[in-house]
Amino acid sequence: MAAEQESTVPRVVDHKARRNEVAAAVLRLVARHGLDSVTMRAVAQEAGWSTGVLNHYFGNKQELLVAGLRLAVRDAGERMQFASENCTGPETLEAVLSEGLPLDEWRLALCRIWISFCAQAVGNEDLAARQRRYYSNWRKTVRGVLEEGQRQGWVGSDLDVSAEADSLIALVDGLGLRAVVGADVSAPDQQLGLLKRWLQGIRRLDAVGS
Amino acid sequence: MAAEQESTVPRVVDHKARRNEVAAAVLRLVARHGLDSVTMRAVAQEAGWSTGVLNHYFGNKQELLVAGLRLAVRDAGERMQFASENCTGPETLEAVLSEGLPLDEWRLALCRIWISFCAQAVGNEDLAARQRRYYSNWRKTVRGVLEEGQRQGWVGSDLDVSAEADSLIALVDGLGLRAVVGADVSAPDQQLGLLKRWLQGIRRLDAVGS
Repeated sequence: MAAEQESTVPRVVDHKARRNEVAAAVLRLVARHGLDSVTMRAVAQEAGWSTGVLNHYFGNKQELLVAGLRLAVRDAGERMQFASENCTGPETLEAVLSEGLPLDEWRLALCRIWISFCAQAVGNEDLAARQRRYYSNWRKTVRGVLEEGQRQGWVGSDLDVSAEADSLIALVDGLGLRAVVGADVSAPDQQLGLLKRWLQGIRRLDAVGS
Repeated sequence: MAAEQESTVPRVVDHKARRNEVAAAVLRLVARHGLDSVTMRAVAQEAGWSTGVLNHYFGNKQELLVAGLRLAVRDAGERMQFASENCTGPETLEAVLSEGLPLDEWRLALCRIWISFCAQAVGNEDLAARQRRYYSNWRKTVRGVLEEGQRQGWVGSDLDVSAEADSLIALVDGLGLRAVVGADVSAPDQQLGLLKRWLQGIRRLDAVGS
């Protein structure tokens, strides 16, 4: 019994790790060539797998994209968590929100899949529910940072943290949408500049006792 | 000659009007059932056309969506233009930006097609270029209103109008993205509330001489 248990544990871990390998390959492809580049064949090649083995783990392109989205969201969530625990003062808010901006290839891939899934979510309740869940978590995180800011005094005590969190998330999402088509202010330093400017505004609002 | 010219003119007008009829049918379908509901057959039925005649005007689903997007963008542009000419003071900015929010079925359809086309634009340079052109026009309009506000004194003279226009467009776009998946703050009054709150902020920034 003990021997049997020991032999199954590594297999389970391996299974998860292998799925993550594929998810990472999906993200690399999306970052480099866009969503259309995600085919079973291309992902197998990128991950160094045979298409037969890939088929065993993922049934179709949609499942590959979901795996990519999950990995990117989890990764962004962990980095947000790390930022909120390890930064101090207003830098926390900037660090947390920056994780949602397409400032590097990985985050650009996340933006592309995110936006594509939002577009597909109309008429697809499963997809819509997942996106809503992600939004809800993100909102909680940002609101939490603002509330912490109020306790620490760098966010005005009368700031409407829910409304501010919603506005900040909309700003970050909207910048991502623009970056995806390569419109003005798609460059990372411009995106970050607009975010910093806005955050500066939150503190200034406080200065006049908004 | 004169008689010939007379007989061709109405036909040209009719051709354009007929294309617009179809574009409006596309938008109604997208608003009610999402992008997947746009098929040659469904659009023909919605517009009261035969699929044969529809095929004569539009080759495929993508062309139908482009027609819908064009009509919605032109319509929004005209309403923005009207608002910027007929409103006074800060209401102008609110009226112009509201046209980009999914506050009714027509604008929700615009948001859905917009976001879908942004998602598809990765790896499709034609689509990306069109979206960039639309963004560029929208940016000019919003910046123009802010500059007019500076001349009239309800926007601070030292406000960075380009950065503010970019932020406002991102805010509106981000709210639209959230509404498309039905996440929190998708209701029209909540979306408008967040916009008004932000615009209030612009005036407050001015009060502290930002």
